[in-house]
Order: sequence, then C-alpha cells, then structure tokens
Amino acid sequence: MKNMSIQQRLTALREYMQKADLQAFIIPSSDVHQSEYPAEHWQSRQWISGFTGSAGTVVVILSDAVLWTDSRYFLQAENELQDSTIRLFKSGLPDTPGIAQWLTSCLPQGAVVGVDGNVYSAREMQNLQAELQVAGLQVNAACEPFGEIWTDRPPIPENPVFVLPDASVGLSVAEKIEAVNERLSHLGADALLVASLDTVAWLFNMRGNDVAYNPVFVAFAYVSKSESVLFIHPKKINSDQIRHLQTEGVTVAHYDKVYEFVSRLSGQRICVPSDKVSYTLYQAVAVKNTIVQAISPADMLKAAKNETELNGIRSAMRKDGVALVRFFRWLEQAVPQGNVTEHTVAEKLVEYRSEQLQFVGESFGTIAGYMANGAIVHYHAHPHTAATICPDGLLLVDSGAQYIDGTTDVTRTVAVGAVSDEMKQDYTLVLKGHIALARASFPVGTRGAQLDVLARQYLWQNGANYLHGTGHGIGHFLNVHEGPQSIRAEENPVALQVGMMLSNEPGVYRAGRYGIRLENLIAVATKGEPTEFGQFLHFETLTLCPFDLAPLNSFLLTEEEKDWLNAYHEMVYRELSPLLLPDEVEWLKLKTTPIK
Amino acid sequence: MKNMSIQQRLTALREYMQKADLQAFIIPSSDVHQSEYPAEHWQSRQWISGFTGSAGTVVVILSDAVLWTDSRYFLQAENELQDSTIRLFKSGLPDTPGIAQWLTSCLPQGAVVGVDGNVYSAREMQNLQAELQVAGLQVNAACEPFGEIWTDRPPIPENPVFVLPDASVGLSVAEKIEAVNERLSHLGADALLVASLDTVAWLFNMRGNDVAYNPVFVAFAYVSKSESVLFIHPKKINSDQIRHLQTEGVTVAHYDKVYEFVSRLSGQRICVPSDKVSYTLYQAVAVKNTIVQAISPADMLKAAKNETELNGIRSAMRKDGVALVRFFRWLEQAVPQGNVTEHTVAEKLVEYRSEQLQFVGESFGTIAGYMANGAIVHYHAHPHTAATICPDGLLLVDSGAQYIDGTTDVTRTVAVGAVSDEMKQDYTLVLKGHIALARASFPVGTRGAQLDVLARQYLWQNGANYLHGTGHGIGHFLNVHEGPQSIRAEENPVALQVGMMLSNEPGVYRAGRYGIRLENLIAVATKGEPTEFGQFLHFETLTLCPFDLAPLNSFLLTEEEKDWLNAYHEMVYRELSPLLLPDEVEWLKLKTTPIK
Repeated sequence: MKNMSIQQRLTALREYMQKADLQAFIIPSSDVHQSEYPAEHWQSRQWISGFTGSAGTVVVILSDAVLWTDSRYFLQAENELQDSTIRLFKSGLPDTPGIAQWLTSCLPQGAVVGVDGNVYSAREMQNLQAELQVAGLQVNAACEPFGEIWTDRPPIPENPVFVLPDASVGLSVAEKIEAVNERLSHLGADALLVASLDTVAWLFNMRGNDVAYNPVFVAFAYVSKSESVLFIHPKKINSDQIRHLQTEGVTVAHYDKVYEFVSRLSGQRICVPSDKVSYTLYQAVAVKNTIVQAISPADMLKAAKNETELNGIRSAMRKDGVALVRFFRWLEQAVPQGNVTEHTVAEKLVEYRSEQLQFVGESFGTIAGYMANGAIVHYHAHPHTAATICPDGLLLVDSGAQYIDGTTDVTRTVAVGAVSDEMKQDYTLVLKGHIALARASFPVGTRGAQLDVLARQYLWQNGANYLHGTGHGIGHFLNVHEGPQSIRAEENPVALQVGMMLSNEPGVYRAGRYGIRLENLIAVATKGEPTEFGQFLHFETLTLCPFDLAPLNSFLLTEEEKDWLNAYHEMVYRELSPLLLPDEVEWLKLKTTPIK
Repeated sequence: MKNMSIQQRLTALREYMQKADLQAFIIPSSDVHQSEYPAEHWQSRQWISGFTGSAGTVVVILSDAVLWTDSRYFLQAENELQDSTIRLFKSGLPDTPGIAQWLTSCLPQGAVVGVDGNVYSAREMQNLQAELQVAGLQVNAACEPFGEIWTDRPPIPENPVFVLPDASVGLSVAEKIEAVNERLSHLGADALLVASLDTVAWLFNMRGNDVAYNPVFVAFAYVSKSESVLFIHPKKINSDQIRHLQTEGVTVAHYDKVYEFVSRLSGQRICVPSDKVSYTLYQAVAVKNTIVQAISPADMLKAAKNETELNGIRSAMRKDGVALVRFFRWLEQAVPQGNVTEHTVAEKLVEYRSEQLQFVGESFGTIAGYMANGAIVHYHAHPHTAATICPDGLLLVDSGAQYIDGTTDVTRTVAVGAVSDEMKQDYTLVLKGHIALARASFPVGTRGAQLDVLARQYLWQNGANYLHGTGHGIGHFLNVHEGPQSIRAEENPVALQVGMMLSNEPGVYRAGRYGIRLENLIAVATKGEPTEFGQFLHFETLTLCPFDLAPLNSFLLTEEEKDWLNAYHEMVYRELSPLLLPDEVEWLKLKTTPIK
C-alpha cells in the first residue's frame, strides 16, 4: 500500500471514521509540539490532501472533503487539489463558511466529529469544542487514524542532538533550571511541563536537526524542584550527553514515556501553558493536578538574552553583514548582465553565508520578490517560476541564517534600476517608520503594542499601511519566530524587557506593482540612569547591512532621522570593513556615505 | 438620633452586623448606578466615616475599622478621620495590605463578610468573591444596613427631569431605541438592561439635576423589540413628559419596580454589561434568563456623536472660548496686582462661563494648580488653603462647563511670570505630543491604545512621562468622563469610530515644583476618500482657546508642528473674534500671532 493515491487515502480515512462512528474528521497543519515547521511524521494534512502549503485545514465527511486555506495559497491549492476530490474553501472571503458552520450544514444534530487531540493545543481545542457545541455537534478528541492508515508514514525524527558549551550560551542547564524553579515559585506552581521544541532546546543547551530552518529536536521536558526530566528518543542522545545532563541534575527518559509520566503525577500545581501544550497532554496532567495558567516562565527567561548570547548574536551579525555586502555587491554587478532570477538570489545568499564560520543553514526560506512579487508578503520563488530581475525598479530580499552563535533575519529593498517618485516616497516613509522605532525610548513596563504605531505613523499620514506586525521575537541560534515578545497592533500583555530581541520591519505593499520592507533586528537595552519618572529603555540595532540610498527621498527626512541613518551606516562600516577585501571595503564606503 | 457621631454610626453598624451574623462589612464609594458622582443618598462611605474624598473603601469589623484611600487623599483622610476610631490604610504603598489580606489576618477561616450587592457592579463582585474565597472567607451580598441605621439618610433625589428637543440631539427616542434593538439583534440578544445614568439620559433625550456636574437623573431603563421601559420616581416626571415618551414607544414605571420587572422576565437573552449593572440586579436577571455579555450597544451608539450633536458641541466651544479668552485676559492683568488665588481662578471661570447662553454649570470641579500644586494631578484648591498666584512660574488650569448644546473640558498651562528653560522644554515637549495626536491619521479599526504613544514619545525621549491616560471619552451635554472609547496605554478593545469625542491631554508633573497639561477635545472624523489600504480617519480639534506662547521653545518644533499650531490659532481667532469686544479681539490677535 505504498504510494497510495489521494482517493485511496481518503477512502482509508473514511473506513476508519465508520469503524469509530465519526461523521467528520478534522486534520489541521500542526504537530504534537505546536511547531511552526512540523517534521514529516506529523504532516498528515499534506499526506491526506496533497496540498503542500504551510497553512490549511482539511475536513473530511463521508460524502465530501474540503480544504480551507488563505489567500497566500489559493492558486497553489487549486493546482495541488486537482484530481483529489477535495474541494477548496477560500478562507477570509465573505462567502466562505467556517468549519463549524459548514459541518452544521452537512451533518445531523448530535453527529460526532473526530480530531486528534495530540495535534491541537489545549486552547485551540477549547475553542473548537465551544464552536462545535454551539453548532450542536460532539467532539471525539481521542482519534489517531494516521498511525493505522498512513502505511509508509515517516518515523518521528531520530537525528542526534548536539550540546552547546556553557561559554556560548552564558548559563548552564542547572542554572536555567534553578531560574525556572524560582519563577515557578512566584507563580505558586510546583512544576512546568514543556512541549515547545525551542524551549526544550534552550533549557538543555542542546540543538538538533529534526525540522527545516529551526535547530530544534523532538522532545518534551518537565521541570520541578525535585526532578527535571528530558523525554527524548534514546537514538538521539549519546551516553556522554546523558551523563552531562545528569551532572546538571536532569534525568533522561524515553520520548514515549511523557504521557505515562504526567499521568502518575498527582496533587501538584503544574504550569501547563495552554497554547503551547497539546490537548491530550494537558488533559492527562489535569486529571489529578491543578493547572497553573501562565506564560511559560522558561519562555520568559529564554526571551531575555543574556550578555553572552547578545555577544554571540553581535558576532553572527558581523558574519551575516559580510555575506550581505558580498551579496548586494554581486547583485549590483550581475543584474545588468541578465539571468539573475529570484531563485538565483536565494542560492547566492546561501553561498555567501555558507562561507562564514559556524554557518548551519538558513533560518527560513528566502523571500526574494521582484516588483509585483515583492508585494506578496509570504512570496516564495520556485526555481521554474521565479521572475528574472531586470535592471529596473525594486527588489525585496528577506533572508536569514542560523550560525552557532546566533540567528539572523534581515530585509532590504534595493533599487535594481530606475525607480519612480512614488517608490521613493514609499521607501522613505517605510524608512522613517523604521528609524522612529529604532530611536524609541520608553519606560520599563511598556508593551510592544504601544510602540507599533511609531513605525506606521508616516505611512498612515499618507493613507498607506502594512497588514503584518512590526516586530516578532527571535531566538539565539533558535527559532526565527519566538514569543512571547512582539511589536504589533494586536494587544500582547508582555512588557518589553532588557535583552529581548525583536525584528523592526515596517513595509508597504502596492498589490500588483511592488513591495518594500526594511528589517533589522533590535535588542531591548537600558537607557542611562533612572530619572524621576523611573528607568527608561531603548533599542540596540544589531543587524549590520547598509540601507540602499538610491530609492531614498532625503527631503522627507528630519535632521534627527538623517543623523540616525548616518550613525547607523558609520557603525556598519566600522564593524564590517575590517572583515572585507579591499574592493568590498571601497564598495561599502560608497554605500555608507553620509547623506546631508 | 440625628447628627450621630461617627462612633455612634459605627456602633449602629456593628449591632446590625451582630444581628446578621457578619464578622466584617465593606462599604465602597459607589452607588446603585456605578456613578462617578453618587447622589448623597448613596454616600454611605462618607456617612459612616466622615471622610469626604471621592475614592475610598471602609471596612468595619467588630473590633476595628479601616479606610483605604489613595495618595490624593492621604492628608485629607488623616484630618477627617481624627476622633473617628477609623484607621487610615494608604493604598499603593508597598506595606499596605489589600482588603482580603487584612481581613484574613483579623478573622477566623469561614467568617462571613457582608456587602450590599446593590452598590457593587457584577464584575467587581465577582472579583471580590474570588479574592475573599481564596482567603477562606464567605460573602453575604444581601445586606442593606444603611436603610435601617442611617436615620437621617437623604432620600433618592426626586428632582424633575427636562426633555431635550430632537432638533438639539439629532435623533428621536424612537430612533435611538430602534438603533439599540438593531445592535442587540447583531449580538443575538433580545433586550438590554441599562443602569448607567448617562446612558438612560442619552436614550430618552432627557436630562436631570440629581448629582453634581453630570446632568443626569436617577433611573433605570429596559429596551427590547416588544417593550421599552423607563423606571423613574413619579415625582421626577410630569404627565406631558410621560405622554411624549409614550408616543416614542416607551412605558414609564416606578423606579422601585425594576427588580420586580426583571425578576418576571424569563427565557430571554438579555444584554447586561457586568461592569455597569449592580450585582443584585444582574443576579435577578440571571435566574431565568441568559446573560449576553457585551459592551452596551447603547453606549456604543452614544459614544459616536451625530452631526447635530457635533454642531452643538462646536457651538458650545465658541461660547466656552469666549469665556476662556475673557478669563485669561483678566488673569494676565490681575496676577501682577496680587490677591489672585487658585480659588479665585475657579470662581472667575464660572463667572465668565455663566454669562454665556445655555450655561448650566461646571462639568467638574476646576483644577487650578499654581507651581507645585500643578504637579498634583487631582488637585482641588479649597478657599482657605488655596495658593496665591505670584507673577512667577506656571499655572495649570483644567476646567469645563455644561451647556445645553455640549460639554467642555479644557486645560491650559500659562506663564504667569518668568519661566525657566526646563519649564519651557517640558512645556514644548508636552505640546509636541499634543500636536502629534491632533495630527494623527489612522486606519478604521485602530484602537486608542495604539495612538497613546504619539502623545508621549517626545517626553519619553527625554526621560519624562505622565501617569494618566492621554484621552477620555466625553458626552454631549452629559458626563465629562464617558466610555467605552479612550486613548491610554492600557488595552481597550474598542476601535475609534467616526463621531467619538475624546480629550487630548498629555502632561508632565515635576513633584514639588510644577505641573504642565495641555488639553483640547477632539472628534474622530473620516479623512478623505478610501485609499487602496482602506478608509483612514483623523481628529477634528474642537476646543477654541489659544496655547500660551510664552513658555514655548519654538526651536524644538518642526515645521509641521509650527504649521499645525499656527493653523489652530488662526481657527481660534476666526471663530472667536466675531463674538468678542474690540479690546478682547486685540488681545486675542496678539495671543494667536503666528510663530516662525
């Protein structure tokens, strides 16, 4: 039964559903660890449908099957669903029903909808149950069909992990566990259950190679004053590593034992973040323990980088800066000669970065969008369809790398030829917003949502906007997207704290024409001594790469903005020039010439 | 038993407590309608303690009694509590226990704490119950001691109401009820229960005279498709008014019948905003009905002023502007002659305002704070202790009026003599923030919390801040503080909508030295046609009063800021000069001279 067709897969699922008395089955995109990039083992939504996009939910009933996905994937989904018998429902369009709404229209009252409670967070499941209950439907969350029907299912990854020396992460495992326990005490909790792979990796100073882009490994963790346990497949960890963890006070157990372990706990107050832990695991803890609901104290600690981590990131930024200078210099020379495509751009970036010390890989798939493609926020160029970059207009390049000492994420938009006045105005308004956030000063306790408007205000004055957040958190040689910190319009109760790393990435997207985004990474730092109004904070800009001055309308900049831009370019030149070849230094000198 | 001493009052309460098996009794400052200014009938906290401040809670146990109040009232409370046997607990200080914490330390586990569920909102009661439950205490919310022990208790006000003509409010009662019912349908609710006095007043196009500053009257309302009822004491409303309401589809019932009325409702979905309706009334509805939790649709409609209301407010602003010009011109001449105190300032403002057509009264007690007193945010000068204003430094004046056509609220800080460079810098930074908010442009859907930083950014750059919100909502000839709209750092999910009126009042307060606040009222308006990014909004500034240019450091202003200030002053001159006497016009011309 290898290489089953989509129809055969759907038939197998429907047979499972009939045996289990299910009238519907919902397959989301997520995994047991609520990962952004799930390992193949958990890509059941892709297996059942053939749809390879990163976001989408398939719902199967006995007589029909539907995929919901958003506008990024409408075209791709239409192509990939051909001959599948699965219909496409376009999320976000006014006439598209929600899942509960559609199920109500197909199923009799009281019908049972099956889901796998392992691949829903506890919070998502609460919402789903509430929604289906209102619609008069029941949920059976204890269904795991893919273990049976997905006959050639890839195993859970068994790749070996590696240990980062304390000197490169700043704190030993024992110190981190102590810090977590201290925070748990403040929350009135005895223990913490961790399912997020980046949190596990941070806590144990280990990294892995189980999924694309994120240097994480598949595991769970449990932390308490009395014992700390790493649940991991024995093939992934060697005896030296186990001994090392033991000296740090950590017991190692088999990955599969986590359910049994939590089922044996009783009478404890356990912190189980409901958006980070699966419904199944959450329920197993809740039976005999009190759940303490809070943002994971481990995530709070992970978010605020220590000085060692920040120094690592500064080092990674110098390496990334060298690669970026080489790349943009190459681009400038190559575009007029033709044959540079959006795909070549991505390849060339990896090539230059891979020459740098301690390079591990990309931190996400490069977004290189020429003109109209730059206006597609999550654009990814495929080798066969990538646009050729002509010496005219704007190219948006958003890329990043994983180095052992840090993770990078940078966007530049550059003029590859002539640009219009409108492009210049848009570029300058985006840069003004970027600078306003980079220069911001704010009291301790300020939330990212309060600062978001600083990056939007000039676009708003001109009737423009961008529909994504201004800044996401980022890890230290870890995930390129990490919480709980953020700078976005949506409320997030987490205050910005010293050491938190974020992106600063305003943009503007003129559909069908061009897109602009300017992104640096920034870190929260104290600003001088406390005043009579308390301690103030500001941002250190970490990324080292010149902003293209060609599409700039410097008449729109204030003196303060010019000063910031010139000082930034001076820093870029100072930090990178000692690491470059003479021709490259000359190019960088030109690119960082002060503006008046 | 008239004129009981505080000790006699406490004794009477303790006798009541013993009869009712209560070990403690909590007396908050609020009334049955959750009003900012309760009528005397509900000022039981003041009666039991002698403390006249606007905020504070008294807790009485058999062997002790304590008042909690905040730093605004520490001195006043100490004075007023002398000889009362009631001890002062200073809220906000690190060593001050909370109410639940203190009660736990005094009472045995399981002890019963009495409260009057009529004077707690349902939400406050939920929080109190949760807090006391954790502390091992029980709550009896069905206690109404003051009906018995307060022998000379003032009655619930029976002052007559008056009707505003449709022409001055823009919508008839029937139209408002229809609009409320339409919004209720969207919420899936059948009916709305209203306890907020300003909402009742808005809904029925009536005003009253039952409390200080707010032109409201004591009443409840119930709105549904099938019937709408005004619960009001019969002495307050005459037969013409009752007939008028009947033609608008409203039944009038006795104020006391509301509990009986809601107890008879059953099987309905009733919108009962838990922060606006008392616990007792909420519980009475909840017995046989489903409660729909939402911001009151009537409050959402009331917040977005219609064109008639806005025109009324514009007219009120011209009258207020004339009075303010006369006041500040008088101040300038009077201060050097001596004998002007903070109290004279408040009197003089009322005098000039009372000369204006349709003046009803002040919209709140004037805050006139000279130098260090200006740094006390809720300062109120008393006749005997008011500071004399010398011709030196800064005077902050925050005042407002109720006119039949609109409510005003304006703050100016003026140099009454020489000002230091630091004062000038602070004044200019506050003005820059004020202008940034006044000039803001933002897409439909933006929340006030997103814009708050615009008014703070320049202060933050200089290590300064203010610890109050930037903008509160305000009514149309109604309460000077109204929700649900606001512009503050704290999250508020309500998006700013066309017609919403708010204050724009950044400030800075140097404790013991001086305070600066600059406040205009603004209204949300559409800005041009929709762009490819949707419809944008901006603010219309409504207040007409020059900003003092003497404490301004114009070197710190950008060209855009100067343009805004000059255009604002030009508008002030254009609108007010036709209404002023020749000498006054000359003075205003000077005060609104464009800056370069």
